[in-house]
Amino acid sequence: MTLVLYQLIGKDHRHYSGPCWRVRMALAHKALDVRCVDFHHGDVEKIAFSGQTKVPVLVDGDRVVSDSWAIACYLDDAYPDRPVLMEGPHGRALTRMINFWADTQLDQPIVRSSFLDILHNLHPDADPVAFRASRETRMGKTLEALQADHTANVAELARNLLPVRTLLLKQPWINGAAPAYADYIVFGSLQFPRCLIGRRFVADDDPVLEWFRRMTTLFNGLANSGPLFSESP
Amino acid sequence: MTLVLYQLIGKDHRHYSGPCWRVRMALAHKALDVRCVDFHHGDVEKIAFSGQTKVPVLVDGDRVVSDSWAIACYLDDAYPDRPVLMEGPHGRALTRMINFWADTQLDQPIVRSSFLDILHNLHPDADPVAFRASRETRMGKTLEALQADHTANVAELARNLLPVRTLLLKQPWINGAAPAYADYIVFGSLQFPRCLIGRRFVADDDPVLEWFRRMTTLFNGLANSGPLFSESP
Repeated sequence: MTLVLYQLIGKDHRHYSGPCWRVRMALAHKALDVRCVDFHHGDVEKIAFSGQTKVPVLVDGDRVVSDSWAIACYLDDAYPDRPVLMEGPHGRALTRMINFWADTQLDQPIVRSSFLDILHNLHPDADPVAFRASRETRMGKTLEALQADHTANVAELARNLLPVRTLLLKQPWINGAAPAYADYIVFGSLQFPRCLIGRRFVADDDPVLEWFRRMTTLFNGLANSGPLFSESP
Repeated sequence: MTLVLYQLIGKDHRHYSGPCWRVRMALAHKALDVRCVDFHHGDVEKIAFSGQTKVPVLVDGDRVVSDSWAIACYLDDAYPDRPVLMEGPHGRALTRMINFWADTQLDQPIVRSSFLDILHNLHPDADPVAFRASRETRMGKTLEALQADHTANVAELARNLLPVRTLLLKQPWINGAAPAYADYIVFGSLQFPRCLIGRRFVADDDPVLEWFRRMTTLFNGLANSGPLFSESP
């Protein structure tokens, strides 16, 4: 049976959501057929059946799962005979740590620089006033002020990527000999900017790029299948 | 057969080395008997047989292993029937990521504040002039200037601990339902300051302390068995 994934879309078919990319890579890893349904900020009626307001939302028959982490766990639990995303109790526990690490240490500097870009690239049916108000209230700054710190945000991301950069000198993938969900988590964080407007966050000489480019060749180039606004994150 | 562990000592029996604590917890986890041999900075002849100049060094019969990460991997490989430190290929790959993360995001702010404390608490036979010169050359600042940034270092550590803090709201140990090597890695980083002079790095209301205190109850209170200069890290 084909699964259904509700994923975020902006204008011009920009699928830039990092958490949605994590799930798309996870579904491909498990070789599961999926039909993607677009969802834009403010389109909350469309996923009201999930009992919350955010994507990704996965529908598998009568099962509805929201939140990328919960979806990844669900896929391993529901499809244990397919390639595993997280091996054993240690694999899942430590991948969760890396999920929280990426959500904060990677996503925060990237998203602070990008709120204004998201605003300018919202889906035509989304509400830019509501988007700006909620983010400015949460962050305590205007979106313009947050983006003005772009150089500092890039420097912070470069520092925070150090453990991945060092790890990839020792092993080809974050998960070791082959990619799995920890790779897709970090990938999602870095895929976001190249699918939004192509604002660069990773320097040309950063060894993390070599890994990122290998990620984009997986699953017949799935990560390059939509509109891209930059070659590199 | 009893294993032998060469571990760092300062004055007044201070065993403050984070990497050595990682290994001591790992040996206890695997329920292996160990005889600890003290080593001070500059005592390089004592471990010349290991072909390098740093502790921890583990001797197991005719096997010599240095570096805490290599020792942890060795223990799982050599004693697979004992409780595992890192479960399966994903467990080892992701623990390695957490090892690099702790070495940089946790140890760097702690150690920058602590070089001067280490200098003042070197073993009487160690060379304080050589210690200061090598660290000041590496860091490009005097040890006094590095310690003067203590408040900023504490704030940096608090930010960097965020993924662990969030994870421990969801599961009791970093490794999930029971502690294992990822817990011992983070533990070693935070055990260091309380065994050196008790300079505090973690705020009293930080939820990470509750986990840390549970760590100190493991293995009959192994982590509280030497001289301590503070209750908390």
